[in-house]
Amino acid sequence: MDAPSPTHAADDDAAGAFVPGPRARCPGGAGPLAGVRLAVKDLFDIAGYPTTYGNPDWARTHPVAAGTAPAVSALLEAGAELVGKTKTVELAFGLTGENVWHGTPRNPAAPDRFPGGSSSGSAAAVAGGLADLALGSDTGGSVRIPASYCGLYGLRPTHGAVSLAGARALAPSFDTAGWFARDAGLLARAGRVLLPTGESGALGPMLRVEEAWAGADPAVAEALRPALTRIEARRSEQAMPLHLAPDGVDALYAAFRALQAEEVWATLGSWVAQTRPRFGPGVAERFEYARTVPPDEVKAARGVRLAFQARVRGLLGGGAVLVFPTSPCPAPKLSASLQEQDRVRARTIGVTAIAGLAGCPEITLPLGRIDGAPAGLSLVAAPGRDRALLGLAESL
Amino acid sequence: MDAPSPTHAADDDAAGAFVPGPRARCPGGAGPLAGVRLAVKDLFDIAGYPTTYGNPDWARTHPVAAGTAPAVSALLEAGAELVGKTKTVELAFGLTGENVWHGTPRNPAAPDRFPGGSSSGSAAAVAGGLADLALGSDTGGSVRIPASYCGLYGLRPTHGAVSLAGARALAPSFDTAGWFARDAGLLARAGRVLLPTGESGALGPMLRVEEAWAGADPAVAEALRPALTRIEARRSEQAMPLHLAPDGVDALYAAFRALQAEEVWATLGSWVAQTRPRFGPGVAERFEYARTVPPDEVKAARGVRLAFQARVRGLLGGGAVLVFPTSPCPAPKLSASLQEQDRVRARTIGVTAIAGLAGCPEITLPLGRIDGAPAGLSLVAAPGRDRALLGLAESL
Repeated sequence: MDAPSPTHAADDDAAGAFVPGPRARCPGGAGPLAGVRLAVKDLFDIAGYPTTYGNPDWARTHPVAAGTAPAVSALLEAGAELVGKTKTVELAFGLTGENVWHGTPRNPAAPDRFPGGSSSGSAAAVAGGLADLALGSDTGGSVRIPASYCGLYGLRPTHGAVSLAGARALAPSFDTAGWFARDAGLLARAGRVLLPTGESGALGPMLRVEEAWAGADPAVAEALRPALTRIEARRSEQAMPLHLAPDGVDALYAAFRALQAEEVWATLGSWVAQTRPRFGPGVAERFEYARTVPPDEVKAARGVRLAFQARVRGLLGGGAVLVFPTSPCPAPKLSASLQEQDRVRARTIGVTAIAGLAGCPEITLPLGRIDGAPAGLSLVAAPGRDRALLGLAESL
Repeated sequence: MDAPSPTHAADDDAAGAFVPGPRARCPGGAGPLAGVRLAVKDLFDIAGYPTTYGNPDWARTHPVAAGTAPAVSALLEAGAELVGKTKTVELAFGLTGENVWHGTPRNPAAPDRFPGGSSSGSAAAVAGGLADLALGSDTGGSVRIPASYCGLYGLRPTHGAVSLAGARALAPSFDTAGWFARDAGLLARAGRVLLPTGESGALGPMLRVEEAWAGADPAVAEALRPALTRIEARRSEQAMPLHLAPDGVDALYAAFRALQAEEVWATLGSWVAQTRPRFGPGVAERFEYARTVPPDEVKAARGVRLAFQARVRGLLGGGAVLVFPTSPCPAPKLSASLQEQDRVRARTIGVTAIAGLAGCPEITLPLGRIDGAPAGLSLVAAPGRDRALLGLAESL
């Protein structure tokens, strides 16, 4: 699936995945990613092109990029062909993938549903066959959720494992650079280019995060159970049940939300206050929360994060792997109300916050379908075990 | 020592600790820090005052702060009296404490030597009795080193444990908000205000980091050995020798330096490129390195960090505490050449990078003197055990 078609269809942009305007392009070369068509989320700098960050007022108030982000350079030097920059939710602050300024990318795997975000265009480009590999970023689920919604393999690496230089920040203690592919082999090949070497240690046993299975839509849990059974058979081991969050995943959501809000405002607040940018539905409200999050909530959230980090890293330090549905529900329908989207967001972040708060790598595998919509199964390992996770996915 | 003098001497600024210009002041109130005179490093926002970040071009190109950093607010709400904002090395990027624009603070404990930095004014204010408590920040040693040089207690907390909202960033994955006091009791009282609650677990055993003891000046090791012996007697346990860095602390220095450089340029590079600020000696060179650090070095450094993090957190997860000299040498003389300062910097960061790379809290205790210059002894615990470290220091 990752060989280039001789005349590919990227110009058509059937999925509405690429940012409007002149297309950033760079021919491929020799190397481990030769022949791989690469799309890059438009929050990474590519020299000579604007980095819009999904918002026209951002584009207007920032110069064209003078350099190229090291993560992008590494993929290009490995031979990948750049086919374009992809749409993102405004300032990467949202999970549905909607962008009212650039247009919301279509979900090629479920056209009546949202593609997921914030790396919406990256997921749509790969799912629609316009690219083989796409770079995104993941703060609160922005690679894992669109991968799950669009039926793709996706990796959120260990926090800090892949360079975010030359990439716009949202909440630095959670921000990561992740990527998408249609098959586990290419996902792992990109990992060998992007990830640091030197990690070691086998993975196992598998731990089934009970709260995430119980909290998912019954149809999601049902759709993913056969995949888990196949993995268990393949590895000749049964996943053991684990209660990971003593106070429930809602407590993880609350902690993530408060911590992210403080960092978002610290990172982007002065630009927002000075520029007073126009925002699409939902985005303005999230920035308003970021501006006003009570310091006491943030302080309590720091305590939750530290305790949760210690617990998860203790559990996973010996090689154990958490397994649970990537998202508790399939992609919302395009007709979903803002309230419905917010409910989905809260439930979703309760689960994506597991890896987010703990700084752990998470891979999502496109192993389920419900009503014609994809659903991903997630594996989470200890920090630094990204390559082992990618290898595990390849072996399945 | 932490009771206020009724008519204190802050106006005199005998240590040259405070930033020039109108003094930021706020009367104290009731609360756990009532009567405590507080100084704040001039990279934290205080509403209505400029945040100079130690550089006149920074001050010129940034507006007066509209809000107050939550860490500062928390201390003021706990009753502390704000007596002024303190000098910092330009953009917090240096360890001697020199600032050619605002003047280098004097080291009240060793007037012929540098005060240490980048939180130089905070350390000088507390050591000189102009404040009882001072807030600083620590990326690569900027609280621990001036505390050691000036004979103070200082804490670099767990990465992420204390809010850095409203504070200028240097290298976010290393940046922390730390503080200074003349006694362990006040250091701990400030911790009870600033740190999240919820951590648990006793500390012990102590592990002596052999590379740091062997790499220190013999006089430093000799000056601190009696203090370690006293602690061992007090705790009825001998510190066990530990080789922490299989490739030596130079490898930690190299990894820290490359990772910090990439982040510094990602954080401040666009401002530097656009503004072309004037910098004092050494600072311009460090920014030039940040601009040009080879991506391959950074990638290798990520691998070193992840492996080191896993190793240290594994070692300390059960409550163990690392013990070693905070700095391998006392504060350099004011007459030291730039080359000599650079050698000290490299040796020092090899040791400060232990907690920096691992994200662990480190407390430095003013327990040694060489040739009339102070030398600190450091204790490092697992992430989240800040309160336990502060309690341990109080008990000694």
